[in-house]
Amino acid sequence: MQVVTTQAGLGRIEDGAFALLDTAFPHIGAVLEQEGSLQCLASCAVRRRIPLDEITPTALLGRPHAVWGVGLNYLSKAARAGRGVPEQPILYLAASSGVSVPGAQVVIPPAVTEPDYEGEIAIVVGRRLHQATESEVWPAIAGITAANDMTARDVMRTTGIPALAKSYPGFTPLGPSLRTPDDLADRAAIRVRTQVNGELLQDDTSAGMIFPIPDLLSRLSWFAALEPGDVVLTGTPAGTGQDRACFLADGDEVRVEVDGVLPLVTRIARPLDAAPRDHRLTAPVS
Amino acid sequence: MQVVTTQAGLGRIEDGAFALLDTAFPHIGAVLEQEGSLQCLASCAVRRRIPLDEITPTALLGRPHAVWGVGLNYLSKAARAGRGVPEQPILYLAASSGVSVPGAQVVIPPAVTEPDYEGEIAIVVGRRLHQATESEVWPAIAGITAANDMTARDVMRTTGIPALAKSYPGFTPLGPSLRTPDDLADRAAIRVRTQVNGELLQDDTSAGMIFPIPDLLSRLSWFAALEPGDVVLTGTPAGTGQDRACFLADGDEVRVEVDGVLPLVTRIARPLDAAPRDHRLTAPVS
Repeated sequence: MQVVTTQAGLGRIEDGAFALLDTAFPHIGAVLEQEGSLQCLASCAVRRRIPLDEITPTALLGRPHAVWGVGLNYLSKAARAGRGVPEQPILYLAASSGVSVPGAQVVIPPAVTEPDYEGEIAIVVGRRLHQATESEVWPAIAGITAANDMTARDVMRTTGIPALAKSYPGFTPLGPSLRTPDDLADRAAIRVRTQVNGELLQDDTSAGMIFPIPDLLSRLSWFAALEPGDVVLTGTPAGTGQDRACFLADGDEVRVEVDGVLPLVTRIARPLDAAPRDHRLTAPVS
Repeated sequence: MQVVTTQAGLGRIEDGAFALLDTAFPHIGAVLEQEGSLQCLASCAVRRRIPLDEITPTALLGRPHAVWGVGLNYLSKAARAGRGVPEQPILYLAASSGVSVPGAQVVIPPAVTEPDYEGEIAIVVGRRLHQATESEVWPAIAGITAANDMTARDVMRTTGIPALAKSYPGFTPLGPSLRTPDDLADRAAIRVRTQVNGELLQDDTSAGMIFPIPDLLSRLSWFAALEPGDVVLTGTPAGTGQDRACFLADGDEVRVEVDGVLPLVTRIARPLDAAPRDHRLTAPVS
């Protein structure tokens, strides 16, 4: 099953059209938080069918309660960065106030000089995961979607804090649709590709992950509990702007494609007055 | 105004009693997210009055969407730690799945060997703060409450990641009541004290902060937007267990007192089978 939150309401994508469902839930996140699964959407009556090109996807999960991420989780990225393979996942939290809707325009703050994209497979939790084994992970996942885990590389370098470099408003485009795991052709090799202005710059599959999805979520669950609706971004493959020292510019269009879900498109805007407005933020953290 | 979320519903504390309010909101967080202020609770009709010792406070804010924190934000703590004063706040996010209710028993996971308390003043955001000046901060704050920003010192040392060391289930006791800023005797010197088993171990005021509340939230707001209901933990003064190399033990009672709000009491439980159940988590992060 593939589901979407749109301005008209929740629906399933089936037979190449959008089936608007007879439900009062405002978004998929609310379904997961209240029901702990998407089962109720599978059996829900259809109000009407709408052509796919007429829907306006909006915040898939509302505002999530947690957005976890992981640094350096693809062999291709570690190789390109010339860094060794980590022994443990480099986990972080981003602020969910930074999540933006599909089709959003993301405005780069004046103080950010090196804004970058990171095309990623996002995992949405369906049932609580705490001290979970690897085999318990997939059955607890509600589905996957696309994410762009945008990062201010300059802020990451000066602060060393992912929660700051990745939490600017709009810096986590997410969506537009959620694909349930039972529906995936190959869970162990989910493809993720990123294009900027139509140029293919990232192309890999989850088979290239250093910590595959079940291992990653299992490990994380021994630190923090993952609750229904929580999001885990699973890392980005080689091919970010960082790898070419080429960062996002005004007017750029970033398109993230993940197997089985609708493409996630974001437009970048950079205001002309590019000087930092607050001088206190230019010094590095001690 | 001082408000509490209890098992019986929302209410104000007035004249030494609990005034149960005629409102359908499940918790204070929902009021802030929907209304952007607590005004509706000030004028809300009272259903009945209940003696304070008969109420059972529960999750003040439900599950928050963001819990920010700051390392080393008191002059007393920096002096005790023998560390210099940071030039920028050392900001982090903790998982809100780790928030626990007043009176909770927090179970220390077997893998954690150095669990510690951090008594803190918690700020609850009322109106959105983004690229805010210092003077815009207090008017946007809904209120203050007490927090215990518990930390696994061993995990902090081996991983270097606050989001892991501070996000175990229950590790962020929060509450029980919220005091609005107009009601504070002195916003610039809010007292915070922590007792463990009745022994006073932390005693300082916000006047001892390196980045005072308006400066701290202003700076944070230039990275991430703070939304209604978001929580900012403002740092802990000298006197944590770390300062004496003495960590929390089974049966300990931690009591955090913050000016103007009800005391926050937490009980610590450590299971007897103290060996880590998952060997993968014992190696340091690369």
